[in-house]
Amino acid sequence: MKLIRFRDGAGVRWGRLEGEQIQVTLGMGGEVSGETALLGSVQVLAPAEPSKIVCVGRNYIDHIKELGNDTGELPREPGLFLKAANTLAENSGNVSYPEWSENFHFEGELALVISQTARNLTPVEVPAAILGYTCALDLTARDKQKTDLQWFRAKAADRFCPLGPTLETQFDPTDVTLRTLVNGETKQDSRTSFMIFDVVQILTYVTRYVTLERGDVVLTGTPSGVGPLERGDTLRVEIDGLDALTTHIV
Amino acid sequence: MKLIRFRDGAGVRWGRLEGEQIQVTLGMGGEVSGETALLGSVQVLAPAEPSKIVCVGRNYIDHIKELGNDTGELPREPGLFLKAANTLAENSGNVSYPEWSENFHFEGELALVISQTARNLTPVEVPAAILGYTCALDLTARDKQKTDLQWFRAKAADRFCPLGPTLETQFDPTDVTLRTLVNGETKQDSRTSFMIFDVVQILTYVTRYVTLERGDVVLTGTPSGVGPLERGDTLRVEIDGLDALTTHIV
Repeated sequence: MKLIRFRDGAGVRWGRLEGEQIQVTLGMGGEVSGETALLGSVQVLAPAEPSKIVCVGRNYIDHIKELGNDTGELPREPGLFLKAANTLAENSGNVSYPEWSENFHFEGELALVISQTARNLTPVEVPAAILGYTCALDLTARDKQKTDLQWFRAKAADRFCPLGPTLETQFDPTDVTLRTLVNGETKQDSRTSFMIFDVVQILTYVTRYVTLERGDVVLTGTPSGVGPLERGDTLRVEIDGLDALTTHIV
Repeated sequence: MKLIRFRDGAGVRWGRLEGEQIQVTLGMGGEVSGETALLGSVQVLAPAEPSKIVCVGRNYIDHIKELGNDTGELPREPGLFLKAANTLAENSGNVSYPEWSENFHFEGELALVISQTARNLTPVEVPAAILGYTCALDLTARDKQKTDLQWFRAKAADRFCPLGPTLETQFDPTDVTLRTLVNGETKQDSRTSFMIFDVVQILTYVTRYVTLERGDVVLTGTPSGVGPLERGDTLRVEIDGLDALTTHIV
């Protein structure tokens, strides 16, 4: 099932997307209300309502190597950082190239949205804690990542997390293709099976320290192939089994 | 005026605290509803509804020196990092010493809560963007701050941000005493005038990159005197003009 968050004359709502038709639901992942809307007549929004966005850094070994962070050892624990809801951007949206950065990078990622309050999850509890999966971009001011005390400007500036377009509730994240294209050219081409920490390991680890809430987002890391953007670029994240995410850099 | 957030039989509410009496308001900082409650009969909560908590690291020169981070130059820009709402803890609350840390530290701080959506603030716009001021603890797993990729476990674990008890709406933050006591003994004793970046500089800087929303929290950094905690410790943050914050480490 595909879940979609959108804005129309009735406000911000959630629904199930069936072809071009939206079956409006009672909130995120709720029952259908009986109302319908047409995809073409609504504004699609990022499909999440996060109190936090938890991101995994350095979760694909090839990406660790390309950034020169290879110590010869795999990380023993996921390296985590935060974004907040101000970073969300909707599918097909414009993201401004930050005038304060000279090296703005794309990082295509698999994301998931949490279904219910999750604390100290055991592996067997992980699937029920996930509402669905979607595509994400962890946009990064690479220059500020190197110079700043923490990855605040580098990762958490407004609209640095395009997400969507839909949440797929039936999805197996263990071994699917993940591609990022810039202006139609494939830049990242990997498989989620190359993650160092898989979704179960990430969520059991995160929830030892931080309670995840319904609507929170987790980004699972980016493979190799990251690179600089320019104004005018169009980004596309393609993950097998999910609707593709498009973002315009302006 | 002192604003208070609390829970009672009617749910989570906001009010104005007048002595022991709460004048219930229509939401955070709203008009009085006519209802009242007694302070002694409610559970006081952290006075904020944050979509994010923005923290300034290394904002007092003496604290930079004590952690061995002194490069001989003052920071030219605020060093920022994020916590999220899961870190909030209420006044007089218990915070568990994390079993996964061997060096859990207190950092007493002045905090403020945002009144309205704030983006690209100019200095003259800053006061209207602040609903009020309160006391905060930026609890820190110092060992994980050193070893982890980013300050996620170190700063953003559950209940690592005791806040409160009340928001003071009439408060001049420029030169007041800030003290942190552990079991009655003064450990931090400084003045907000020793901040490297003051409240106006912090908020104009933050909002260049990140939109602050109504209810968001900003922590302004800690002076020297930080140190390790033990189970059984009682922490108290005292800032002249604000109600004191008490936290029990268990």
